[in-house]
Amino acid sequence: MVRSPNGTLVGTSRVLVGLVGSGIGPSLTPALHEREGDAQGMRYLYQRLDLDVLGLGAGDVGRVLDAARLAGFRGLNLTHPVKQTVLPHLDTLSPDAEALGAVNTIVLGPDGIAAGDNTDWSGFATSLRRGLPDAALGHVVVLGAGGAGAAVAHALVRLGAGRLTVVDADPSRAAALARAVPAASAVPASALAAALADADGLVHATPTGMAGHPGSPVPAELLDPRLWVADVVYRPLETELVRTARARGLRVLDGGGMAVFQAIDAFRLFTGVEPDADRMLGHFTELVAASP
Amino acid sequence: MVRSPNGTLVGTSRVLVGLVGSGIGPSLTPALHEREGDAQGMRYLYQRLDLDVLGLGAGDVGRVLDAARLAGFRGLNLTHPVKQTVLPHLDTLSPDAEALGAVNTIVLGPDGIAAGDNTDWSGFATSLRRGLPDAALGHVVVLGAGGAGAAVAHALVRLGAGRLTVVDADPSRAAALARAVPAASAVPASALAAALADADGLVHATPTGMAGHPGSPVPAELLDPRLWVADVVYRPLETELVRTARARGLRVLDGGGMAVFQAIDAFRLFTGVEPDADRMLGHFTELVAASP
Repeated sequence: MVRSPNGTLVGTSRVLVGLVGSGIGPSLTPALHEREGDAQGMRYLYQRLDLDVLGLGAGDVGRVLDAARLAGFRGLNLTHPVKQTVLPHLDTLSPDAEALGAVNTIVLGPDGIAAGDNTDWSGFATSLRRGLPDAALGHVVVLGAGGAGAAVAHALVRLGAGRLTVVDADPSRAAALARAVPAASAVPASALAAALADADGLVHATPTGMAGHPGSPVPAELLDPRLWVADVVYRPLETELVRTARARGLRVLDGGGMAVFQAIDAFRLFTGVEPDADRMLGHFTELVAASP
Repeated sequence: MVRSPNGTLVGTSRVLVGLVGSGIGPSLTPALHEREGDAQGMRYLYQRLDLDVLGLGAGDVGRVLDAARLAGFRGLNLTHPVKQTVLPHLDTLSPDAEALGAVNTIVLGPDGIAAGDNTDWSGFATSLRRGLPDAALGHVVVLGAGGAGAAVAHALVRLGAGRLTVVDADPSRAAALARAVPAASAVPASALAAALADADGLVHATPTGMAGHPGSPVPAELLDPRLWVADVVYRPLETELVRTARARGLRVLDGGGMAVFQAIDAFRLFTGVEPDADRMLGHFTELVAASP
């Protein structure tokens, strides 16, 4: 803990940050950040700025950003529905955030500069490298072409994936993501079986399997033990897809790693201090176990 | 410490507040609040919202208030130059703040209501009651008719003072304060000796004696041992006035108590939790000793 001669916490050790989005009450990210800040001896406060509670919409994100800047926030995380609407309000954008067209992390500099970045893709990339280090990436199927699917696709490309096949119930959304990502093509949902027959692995990036969206997005018989499977859903960690794939002998990665590593990468950006990844993974396990 | 089943701090224990004013870097109030919050097991962050740093003026206080409300602040303290300019932006005003025409504490309710209050007067009142419990209040001279003088005069009236004499280098300012306070009259600076000859005590409420404003506001020969003397200056605690008066045998109250009790009263308003006054007084002594 860094203390000045008069005993107050000083320097980098005071951190005020927040999460902007809709319906963010259940998010574990505030607790993840605060616990790591505590462990680092920082005075760390992570505020929920819930648009629903504030009576604001996605178009008001510029107002929220101005308020955070004025109030001395070190930065913000963003989630649905403001990851895209925030773009015109930022002063700079990392190359990855620009490529993705989505920002989940803003660092507010002492000069007032708002710098947009994205740790969703890097969170997934780190999780995949750590959890399935030997996963072949010659051909990967990405199921779901929304924000999570885009982050996953960007991560796979950055990890050197040879070829991506994007599948979404909405063919125009699949096509749009495939256009935005090198070496990606879109196929209709009816072609999922054919795509998997030729793939090394599958990343699932739709809400199916979340509490409130029960079920599995992939018929069990398509889960060949030759494949690896990564789910981005993390509440619960043990989705029906994860459970079924594991039972059938596939190598499996649950969604927890992406959730924690996006927070780890954001913590580093906010504070300039390297967080303890294993400690944050441990906290995450505790938080998930304790949450309803 | 209040912890939820998942180990995070909950309920009243998360507190984000701030101080709005000009040149507030040296203020000890943030450290006073945070140390008491720590001791109470709260996650307490007290932000400096310095108008000079933000490039804002006294007229921008409404913007700062809006930002604090949006960012989830529990409340704000206010100091020069926004204690009056904030009035039109508040939803409610305590009777004391209304009588004083000045607000140093705003509580932001969960409903967005901004309630103005004033703990400068109550801070002085408590300090005087504790520090000089037997001080006669039949006739008290108040030297200085600015914001501090007004708070002191209000406190003296609330404590039952019989008669106040207000002295200021600016006669119109003295007259204005005398008009606003029951049983008060204004006299010119040249009449200070005559006023003190007839008084029970003196409260000093000008900047003289502060670091950067050396000297004593009252000639030593006017400090008759029959009088009590209270100074509102607290940096240093031992002003030339305090030192001289004590050496001449007067009962003396330094400015520390008012500084701490305004913070104690604000802490209670922000959190709804009773602070430990002796602990905060102890922290204040440490902070003053350690500060330059």
